[in-house]
Amino acid sequence: MANPTAAMLVIGDEILSGRTRDANMYHLAGELSRLGIDLQEVRVVSDNADAIIAAVKALSGGYTHVFTSGGIGPTHDDITADCIAAAFDTTIDVREDARALLAAHYESRGVEMNAARLRMARIPEGAELIDNPVSVAPGFTLGNVHVMAGVPAVFEAMVASVLPKLTGGAPLLSQTLTVHRPEGEIAGPLAELATDYPDLSIGCYPFQKDGAFGANIVVRGAEGRQINAAMTRLARDLGT
Amino acid sequence: MANPTAAMLVIGDEILSGRTRDANMYHLAGELSRLGIDLQEVRVVSDNADAIIAAVKALSGGYTHVFTSGGIGPTHDDITADCIAAAFDTTIDVREDARALLAAHYESRGVEMNAARLRMARIPEGAELIDNPVSVAPGFTLGNVHVMAGVPAVFEAMVASVLPKLTGGAPLLSQTLTVHRPEGEIAGPLAELATDYPDLSIGCYPFQKDGAFGANIVVRGAEGRQINAAMTRLARDLGT
Repeated sequence: MANPTAAMLVIGDEILSGRTRDANMYHLAGELSRLGIDLQEVRVVSDNADAIIAAVKALSGGYTHVFTSGGIGPTHDDITADCIAAAFDTTIDVREDARALLAAHYESRGVEMNAARLRMARIPEGAELIDNPVSVAPGFTLGNVHVMAGVPAVFEAMVASVLPKLTGGAPLLSQTLTVHRPEGEIAGPLAELATDYPDLSIGCYPFQKDGAFGANIVVRGAEGRQINAAMTRLARDLGT
Repeated sequence: MANPTAAMLVIGDEILSGRTRDANMYHLAGELSRLGIDLQEVRVVSDNADAIIAAVKALSGGYTHVFTSGGIGPTHDDITADCIAAAFDTTIDVREDARALLAAHYESRGVEMNAARLRMARIPEGAELIDNPVSVAPGFTLGNVHVMAGVPAVFEAMVASVLPKLTGGAPLLSQTLTVHRPEGEIAGPLAELATDYPDLSIGCYPFQKDGAFGANIVVRGAEGRQINAAMTRLARDLGT
C-alpha cells in the first residue's frame, strides 16, 4: 500500500525577505520520513490572506496531511487561524477550552490576559486543539490541516504532539554512498541501476569540497534487502 | 510603481526527505530583497516531472520572475531542463554553444566528454544561457524562468550572473527593534502602528532565549524617512 502523503505550508514574510533561514521545514521533513509519511511538496507564502487561503485549499485537496507553520501568535500580522477557517468555509471565535488554558497559564505567571493574548484562543469551529507544552497557546487540527506555530521550539513541540496521532506508512529506509568523483563519471552506472531497481529511488547529490567534485548517492526504499543489493552493486560498479 | 515580483521553485527529493537543509532559498531571498524584487512564494517539489511542470506553469504565470534550483546535472534524476521545455511547450536538444563550453572545459582538464556530460548541453529552444563560472555547465533563462543548479556554490554563482541583467525596484529597507518582552504585551501598540503606517510592513517575530520570550519587530518599506518615524514611535510606545 502506498504511504500517506503530506505537504507543508510555511507562512511568513521573514523567510521570503531573507531575514530568517528556515528551520521548521527541515525538522518536519526528517520527522515525516521516519514515520513513513511522504512529504511531497512545500510552499512558502507571505502573510497575505488570499495567498494563504489559496494554498491551504490546494494542498488540503492534494495530500493526506497538510502541516502549517507560522502566523498563530497574538499580533496583528498573525492571520493564519482566520485564513484556515475561511479556507474550510467555517466560523472562528474564542473557544472556552483554549481560553481557559491561556487564562490559567497567565494567572500562574502573574501576567495580564489582554485582548491580544485572547486572540490566541480563537479556534475555527470543529477543530481539535494541538498541545503546546512550551508556551501553552495551542495549535489546532481542522480536517486534514495541522496548524502550528512558527517559533522553532514551539513548532517542534507541536509536531511531537501531533505525529503520534497519525497513521504512518513504511518508514523510508536509505543508505548513502559518498563518491569522490564528479557526477559526470558515475551517471552511466547510476542510470542503469535506477532502471534495474524501479522500486528504489536513487538520487545523486553533487557537492564541491576543497575544490574537488564528489557526490552523495542516496538509495531510498521500503525494503532493506533491496537497498542492500543495490548498494553492493553500486560499490562494485563504481569501484569504491 | 510596484516592485517586480518573483517566485522560487526548489526541485529535489533531498530537501523533502529531510536529508538536506535548504540553503539556496535563503541566499536568493536575501539577494532579491537587496535588488527590490519581491519574493512572494517558494515551492519545493520532488524530482517528479508532472509536479515540476505544473509548478513551473503556475509560478511563471503568476510572477514577474521565477528562479529554479536543482536538477540540471548529468545524472538520470536530473529532469529539470526537459520539464521546463515541456512547460513552455517547446523542444529541447544539445545546443552547440553549450556543448562547446563543456568540451573546452573537459578537454582542458583531460577528462572525457561522455554521454552523461553531454546531457548538460541540452537546452530548450529559445533559451539564453546563464554563465557558470564554477563548473562551466550552464543554466538558462527561458521566458521569465531562470533555471539554475542546486549545488549551493554553483547556484550562488549563477544568481550572481543573472541578477545584474534584471530590472529591480525600490530596494526594501528595514529596521529591526529587539524587545525582551513577550509578544502578547506589545501586540496592541504594534497593531495601532500598522494601522497608522499602511505603506509599511510591520512584522513581529517572536523568539525564545534562555527561557524568556522576546520578539524582533521588523519594519519594512521603501522610504527610509517613514521607517525612521515608525521606529521612533515604536521605541517610545514600547518604552525601550
